[in-house]
Amino acid sequence: MACNALAKAGVNVRIIDQRPAKVAAGQADGIQPRTIEIFQSYGLGERLLREGNQMHTAAFYNPSAQGGVELTDRVPDVTATSAKFPFEVTLHQGAIEDMFLDSMKSLGVEVERPIVPVSIQVSEDEEELGNPKFRPVKVTLRRLSGPNTGLSEVVYARFVIGADGAHSWVRKNLNVAMEGEQTDHVWGVIDILPDSDFPDIRNKTVVHSNNGSCMVIPRENDKVRVYIQLEDGQGPSVATTNGRVDKTKIGPEQLLAVAQRIFHPYSLSAVNGFEWWTIYKIGQRVASQFSVKDRVFIVGDACHTHSPKAGQGMNASMGDSHNLAWKITAVLRGWANMSLLRTYEFERRKYAQDLIAFDRKFAKLFSGKPRTEENHDGVSHEELLQIFQTFGGFTSGIGIRYGTSSITDTKYHSTAPKLAIGERIPPLALVRAADSRPFDILDLLPADSRFKVLVFLGRESCDGQQISRAEEVAVGLEETLRTVAPNKDIFALFDIVTVLSASRKTVRYNAFPALLRSHWSKIFVDETGGARNVFGIEGSGAFVVVRPDGYVGTVAPLESVTHLADYFTAFNRC
Amino acid sequence: MACNALAKAGVNVRIIDQRPAKVAAGQADGIQPRTIEIFQSYGLGERLLREGNQMHTAAFYNPSAQGGVELTDRVPDVTATSAKFPFEVTLHQGAIEDMFLDSMKSLGVEVERPIVPVSIQVSEDEEELGNPKFRPVKVTLRRLSGPNTGLSEVVYARFVIGADGAHSWVRKNLNVAMEGEQTDHVWGVIDILPDSDFPDIRNKTVVHSNNGSCMVIPRENDKVRVYIQLEDGQGPSVATTNGRVDKTKIGPEQLLAVAQRIFHPYSLSAVNGFEWWTIYKIGQRVASQFSVKDRVFIVGDACHTHSPKAGQGMNASMGDSHNLAWKITAVLRGWANMSLLRTYEFERRKYAQDLIAFDRKFAKLFSGKPRTEENHDGVSHEELLQIFQTFGGFTSGIGIRYGTSSITDTKYHSTAPKLAIGERIPPLALVRAADSRPFDILDLLPADSRFKVLVFLGRESCDGQQISRAEEVAVGLEETLRTVAPNKDIFALFDIVTVLSASRKTVRYNAFPALLRSHWSKIFVDETGGARNVFGIEGSGAFVVVRPDGYVGTVAPLESVTHLADYFTAFNRC
Repeated sequence: MACNALAKAGVNVRIIDQRPAKVAAGQADGIQPRTIEIFQSYGLGERLLREGNQMHTAAFYNPSAQGGVELTDRVPDVTATSAKFPFEVTLHQGAIEDMFLDSMKSLGVEVERPIVPVSIQVSEDEEELGNPKFRPVKVTLRRLSGPNTGLSEVVYARFVIGADGAHSWVRKNLNVAMEGEQTDHVWGVIDILPDSDFPDIRNKTVVHSNNGSCMVIPRENDKVRVYIQLEDGQGPSVATTNGRVDKTKIGPEQLLAVAQRIFHPYSLSAVNGFEWWTIYKIGQRVASQFSVKDRVFIVGDACHTHSPKAGQGMNASMGDSHNLAWKITAVLRGWANMSLLRTYEFERRKYAQDLIAFDRKFAKLFSGKPRTEENHDGVSHEELLQIFQTFGGFTSGIGIRYGTSSITDTKYHSTAPKLAIGERIPPLALVRAADSRPFDILDLLPADSRFKVLVFLGRESCDGQQISRAEEVAVGLEETLRTVAPNKDIFALFDIVTVLSASRKTVRYNAFPALLRSHWSKIFVDETGGARNVFGIEGSGAFVVVRPDGYVGTVAPLESVTHLADYFTAFNRC
Repeated sequence: MACNALAKAGVNVRIIDQRPAKVAAGQADGIQPRTIEIFQSYGLGERLLREGNQMHTAAFYNPSAQGGVELTDRVPDVTATSAKFPFEVTLHQGAIEDMFLDSMKSLGVEVERPIVPVSIQVSEDEEELGNPKFRPVKVTLRRLSGPNTGLSEVVYARFVIGADGAHSWVRKNLNVAMEGEQTDHVWGVIDILPDSDFPDIRNKTVVHSNNGSCMVIPRENDKVRVYIQLEDGQGPSVATTNGRVDKTKIGPEQLLAVAQRIFHPYSLSAVNGFEWWTIYKIGQRVASQFSVKDRVFIVGDACHTHSPKAGQGMNASMGDSHNLAWKITAVLRGWANMSLLRTYEFERRKYAQDLIAFDRKFAKLFSGKPRTEENHDGVSHEELLQIFQTFGGFTSGIGIRYGTSSITDTKYHSTAPKLAIGERIPPLALVRAADSRPFDILDLLPADSRFKVLVFLGRESCDGQQISRAEEVAVGLEETLRTVAPNKDIFALFDIVTVLSASRKTVRYNAFPALLRSHWSKIFVDETGGARNVFGIEGSGAFVVVRPDGYVGTVAPLESVTHLADYFTAFNRC
């Protein structure tokens, strides 16, 4: 994810992996609604949707009076009302990696493997560290196989990203501590082609039985993943060595046997054995820092670990890379100060902490005994459902909000009071002025490293009758953006999208100033009043700045174009 | 189109072309809503939508009181309310051919070129002709270049399809006459990257001026096609030889000059010259027969020619191939009698005649002078708009209805009175029972050579409470279909899709009989009452048979399963 984002931005990037081959099966596989949007912004959404399975419904099973479990409830899996894709996609990690590998390959970048880093050093020189032209990180690499086995190579890098998992070599070698606890939660996972009479085998299903709990995640090609919680004396005993589970002491057949007891009276067996399986003990921990001197960064499991129940692992990790890549790009291009990089840890560490707080709550309910006639202190379906739905915005990724910083400025929030600054911009139905083709605003915001300046012209643009005001707005905007754009080339750094309060029947798209329609495809009409209803923008109009990662950076009244200058110069270098 | 459809069906097929290379630019380029659906049924819809431009709006320009033309009206380009894709797609013919070539290549079939046929003979032997195992067509081919230039090859074919254009060699060599007239309509066409201040350059626009008429068709990559009518003394004189226009006597610059006079006061010029251009005189003609002894068929321009104004050319042609391919496949597989092939000419020749009748009406209005203050007898915008909208169902391809025949049986029409038997089945929103994923019924009907038997279980299926009736239905259906399926393998010939009147909250998809859910993905719930509202199916349910090409073949009450036996045995051989 990180490498592809940087390669797409034209950054000179190398990627190494100690694995001799890419992941073929298993591993993480759930893609949240916000992550689907992010894939789409990189041009990978169509393929993801073509290859993946979709989960639309979450089902809950609880103890039945007749013994065994029964269906208690089915609810929409995604409760975030503004999700453009109101479902989760499941697809094995190998297929997801393939999308990135193919995209990278088309950009001339391939994974070098198997290679391990053997040393990493960051310069102490403040001048070197403060100037992105220097290469203050020295990394020594060693090749593990092939004609040059054992050969070392020294790389001097401007930036290094450690996306090397829960046992991150990068994190350990730079002495970054993990904070939090190694819990007792032990999980077994099996990927199978099921033979089952369970009515919800194709839904995301939580089975909360008197024999333990498990979760069903349906997958591509009719396959199903079953997560089985193993603590609390359920199932086979699990030996650990140095906090890691010893996989030689238990096998997938035993995991399936535990699941079968939980599923009773429904049947569950595996056709053609086990595609993949694992068992692991989980920690709920966050790294004390996400970067070393803003030159080496850690992303993903390297900086946060938590249980799989909330289905956040891969999503949180890809969100880290998505957040970081455009910032590194902006600094390397000379568009932004090094200070921009501080916002990575600021934004993503807070999110990781929130995630783990949620995970603790959810895990506690999940692993508690279900409430029954005999066990009045158990966890009720209502409690579980409430937390599932209350945190729906969070678990879908849609509701993530970044706090105020140099890139998240709420000064003029009253200009668009329904728009949450710091959240990803919500969908808005628009119609392209030149050809009446319908678009969602999210389709107009590719992850192309540029800030998007959305110009809502408000009532001034009604049917193009009063374009003199639009011309004033364009003059002011052009002046402002030229001051921050490198070589005065506005469109290198900004994409300008214009939204008119007009009707497709009468609009003259080419009557508007050239800056507001750098291409005929850049000007839209808002026929349904969505700007007002969804964003809270009144007839006087507004500028909305969307960051390169799709999050709302700031808003301003049309007459306060100087606020845009203030916003961009806070981190701009030009 | 024909070759790809046959190759997908596993038919042993060869395709030859006299052109040394595939079409690179120009030619036909408008894809109608029904054709988009057909592409989707072959798995090519996603790519078509990714690569093509969309036309959502039709604009009309007429003489202005100030001289020149002005915008009179904008209306939706597609008025057929049931179109799944309510727009047209434009894409140059080379890109469309590429989709078929790539699809064919993945099936091991490539175009052999440049090769021409030099003789064709159809046996007179009735026994040979009546048995699809014989190869009664003898074709001699000659290679035009490459190492084997001039080498002849004799092919004995079971079937031959002449998809060889308006001047069809196949048609002429089998002495099939074209009926109708060579009109005086002469058209010029230019494909340009426009520089223009015309506000509707990205819409499908009819410009009806006192200086003549033209039509704008926006295309992919910002390009535009302009069709310019040249008769009536407008523009340069056009020399013809043997009814074909002499392209050496006129060039694209002169065509553009005519268009510029029509566009006044708006500007129009060509950036980077002309991508493609042509000029042609058009006939409105239909072949007297579409096949010779049901062994040689002609499709496309080989059997019907008409003006480009209604944008039907390529669509009508691809519709022919789509209609023919599954019938040849069924005969070759031994599923159907030779008599099935008679329905190709029956269905498609009638359609071609209707198309030309429409074309005559439209062309007359289009080429007439516009009505103005000075010219009260001219064509008014209202007249042109009325015919545009009245024939919207026809021009979109959505409203094409095939007459009653062995494969279009209206006996029990009252079971689903809102469903037009002989038309393509209209969209219907369904939810998959096992996983709540939304689908349109059109997504469930791939062009895979199989008949689709849709089982609407009606009120018997409410929430799965009364499945005993469903079991009866399944037993009767299984008996019936086995009698017509080869080797009693029902699913070789039929796909069964079941629709329940149930809710996703409570449905148990796996409580229904196995025949009705050959896979978990084959059973759906109709939560919105669409079966009743759109198809007119009441609570007592219905069978709906959809032909392999997506057209409704017949319907029957659930208690009249014998009607399905009657329907299939009318053309079935097993």
